[in-house]
Amino acid sequence: MLHNFANKDTICAPATASGSGAIAIIRISGPQSFSICDKVFTSYDGLESLSKAAAYTIHYGKISKGDQLIDEVLVSVFKNPKSYTGEDSIEISCHGSTYIQEQILELLREKGCRYADAGEFTMRAFLNGKFDLSQAEAVADLIASNSESSHQLAIQQMRGGFSNRIKELRQELLDFASLMELELDFSEEDVEFADRSKFKELLQKINTEVQQLIESFKLGNVMKHGIPVAIIGKPNAGKSTLLNRILKEEKAIVSDIPGTTRDAIEDTIIMDGIAFRFIDTAGLRQSGDKIENLGMERTYEKIKQSQVILYVCDLTQSSPDELSIQLEDFKEHIEDKNKQFIIIGNKTDELTELPSHFTKYVDLETIFISAKRNENIHLIAESLKKSVSKLNLKDTAIVSNARHLDILNKVAKNIALVEEGFQNDIPTDLIAIDLRQALHHLGEITGEVTNDELLGNIFGRFCIGK
Amino acid sequence: MLHNFANKDTICAPATASGSGAIAIIRISGPQSFSICDKVFTSYDGLESLSKAAAYTIHYGKISKGDQLIDEVLVSVFKNPKSYTGEDSIEISCHGSTYIQEQILELLREKGCRYADAGEFTMRAFLNGKFDLSQAEAVADLIASNSESSHQLAIQQMRGGFSNRIKELRQELLDFASLMELELDFSEEDVEFADRSKFKELLQKINTEVQQLIESFKLGNVMKHGIPVAIIGKPNAGKSTLLNRILKEEKAIVSDIPGTTRDAIEDTIIMDGIAFRFIDTAGLRQSGDKIENLGMERTYEKIKQSQVILYVCDLTQSSPDELSIQLEDFKEHIEDKNKQFIIIGNKTDELTELPSHFTKYVDLETIFISAKRNENIHLIAESLKKSVSKLNLKDTAIVSNARHLDILNKVAKNIALVEEGFQNDIPTDLIAIDLRQALHHLGEITGEVTNDELLGNIFGRFCIGK
Repeated sequence: MLHNFANKDTICAPATASGSGAIAIIRISGPQSFSICDKVFTSYDGLESLSKAAAYTIHYGKISKGDQLIDEVLVSVFKNPKSYTGEDSIEISCHGSTYIQEQILELLREKGCRYADAGEFTMRAFLNGKFDLSQAEAVADLIASNSESSHQLAIQQMRGGFSNRIKELRQELLDFASLMELELDFSEEDVEFADRSKFKELLQKINTEVQQLIESFKLGNVMKHGIPVAIIGKPNAGKSTLLNRILKEEKAIVSDIPGTTRDAIEDTIIMDGIAFRFIDTAGLRQSGDKIENLGMERTYEKIKQSQVILYVCDLTQSSPDELSIQLEDFKEHIEDKNKQFIIIGNKTDELTELPSHFTKYVDLETIFISAKRNENIHLIAESLKKSVSKLNLKDTAIVSNARHLDILNKVAKNIALVEEGFQNDIPTDLIAIDLRQALHHLGEITGEVTNDELLGNIFGRFCIGK
Repeated sequence: MLHNFANKDTICAPATASGSGAIAIIRISGPQSFSICDKVFTSYDGLESLSKAAAYTIHYGKISKGDQLIDEVLVSVFKNPKSYTGEDSIEISCHGSTYIQEQILELLREKGCRYADAGEFTMRAFLNGKFDLSQAEAVADLIASNSESSHQLAIQQMRGGFSNRIKELRQELLDFASLMELELDFSEEDVEFADRSKFKELLQKINTEVQQLIESFKLGNVMKHGIPVAIIGKPNAGKSTLLNRILKEEKAIVSDIPGTTRDAIEDTIIMDGIAFRFIDTAGLRQSGDKIENLGMERTYEKIKQSQVILYVCDLTQSSPDELSIQLEDFKEHIEDKNKQFIIIGNKTDELTELPSHFTKYVDLETIFISAKRNENIHLIAESLKKSVSKLNLKDTAIVSNARHLDILNKVAKNIALVEEGFQNDIPTDLIAIDLRQALHHLGEITGEVTNDELLGNIFGRFCIGK
């Protein structure tokens, strides 16, 4: 982030998704927006200069490189401070060819624009006071949202719901701190302005709220990223077919040759507004095939990342005893024992009768299906949905950002130190240090406290053009 | 194309590339554009209805579904006839999340929009007389353009250069036809208004021009689609490594296990404004592996589509004699003998001296390289560039559209029949039938003659939202 606080130059970047579309947008922001565009754009409506155009107007014309026509475009004019960034801005709507976009961007650079860093438009908006840091982060979340829950979470955060909760919390801490500072000012007189029990009460309340926020991350993370579900089992147990059934489309290559799936294939479906990310993995076996062994390593990696494991077994190949052994063997490889386990007994179509005594041997939820015949797949969906508690967004602030969680954990530690200080009768001025730390940290969430590195970390994760 | 000439309903579609971007555009066109948007959009600038907004203005506000906020957006207003389609139109610029786009499109449909067919916006523009059919086709070409040559070709066609040439040609045919019709009107009097030699001269001229246009397709097709180059050779000859070197990035999986490349991988580089599409293929060998045999079939398919073949051989494995046999064997499989063949002798790094007598045995251009050490790769690029004659767009009309070529071939046939008719003294009224056919066909290029099926074929190939 070389250009953090410069803000004097004019930046450009494509703002729409890459690839071919009917239209693409190129975004320009900065003090030279109009004069640079004037050099490459000729309006068909007789407009002399974009600086003379009214704000929030659109102009049809052409972009040329010398006497070579690059494209016929629409140019939208936004004027400081009424733009996304708060600066003079232009949006060029051109034909959606990558080649044309490259040509226009190259032209703009020749005429004095700088290619924007990732997230630089939004960073400028933040620096120009258009919104706070948590709201800026929500913009990226909003763009990445793929389900009702992640969308609502991001919208609420973008509109300031979460920021307000943090600001309230900070205010309570400030009230507490000011009482303490007051005591410090009069410390020579040994006055206690608030009695200790009232102090402790307030501290208890703040602590509870911080803990609630920290606790909410579990839910927030699921709402935002979905629930990762790994599909595991021996080769040819029917994992890819099952995934295809669940996704209701043919994403994985299915063949009758064991070991066909080399790469882990991910895909997502939304059920009741929550995303479930399915991970199809290479089969669990020892193999002489180099490439497939790479796949095996990845399988265990994927298991680590998952929250639910669907263990698919081929009922025609495994007796309950064998399955128990398989499972024990498999569980040894799993470090986190808290994952939800569902056994999927596949290929019921090849059995004359259902293995009714099966569950006696395996002490886990078991669902019998035929992936081939598409039978009982819905039972898996129902079981997965049960695993998610009903969500209610309106009443609570929910932490969904790992950075915020990290900060809240620091705040919790500071508060614990304050409590400890009280218990051990540590002098008030020492306790005040921890309190100030907590206030400092909370300010980092909304951006009241900030620095170059923090901004670089946050906006570097944005896409180009945002 | 159920909705061809209805034009009474209002359509909507995403207009930007799918995938995640900072911004996405949703396009709406038709008589109800404003009233439908009014139902879901609330302007922050106090605008009561979009119908009251001035044309070419932008409005900031929110899109809601009941009391649920979907997104904060910019809405651009275009008014009949000054819009792309010539109808009342709206463009909604929302955050670039697929989820948000789906939500907004669903809302618009609920309120009365129909989801647009592929190319329907451009078809409406054509039907409303914004441009002719060949220009409409150029819009799709422009979006697909990925090189200077394909871009310039599309721009020239979109601006009407090609249409004008066709219209001139049609006019010449019309002049000819009107002379003939005049003769027909007075046929009882047995008058010849133009002497036959003048007739033949004019016909000769038209014929030459049609042939020139047909001939130009060879160049037009290369300019538009690039030159397909297949990379062929025995397993482990270094095809994938070579492709990676050429593309200067790691697109194909490279391993030391023969048979790693199962799928044909395509990629394109631009040299001197012309695209070369490289096709990496599965190795040429008989294999017991089912999946790899599928790859082999595809290899021969890819060869059929290619114009240049790079035959890669492993110099450490093949003597010149062996290579000759390999090549003879391989050439038997190639139906079209006109393809350009370049032999790439790979792995010079593993030889103590260069096989200087090599080319004596193989009567084909041969380039020695080390893909591993990235040596002499540039010689391949130079050889490929030589294969393309220098292009000059400004002077000539170039056919780049297979539909146009098809029509011009029909026109050429009609003209040949007319010439034949003259030679055999066929009655003028019979000759006139072929002439009218030629005129009819030329009208199909620019859309003066059209029908539902033709429009369906053309616009069905467009992307959604265009």
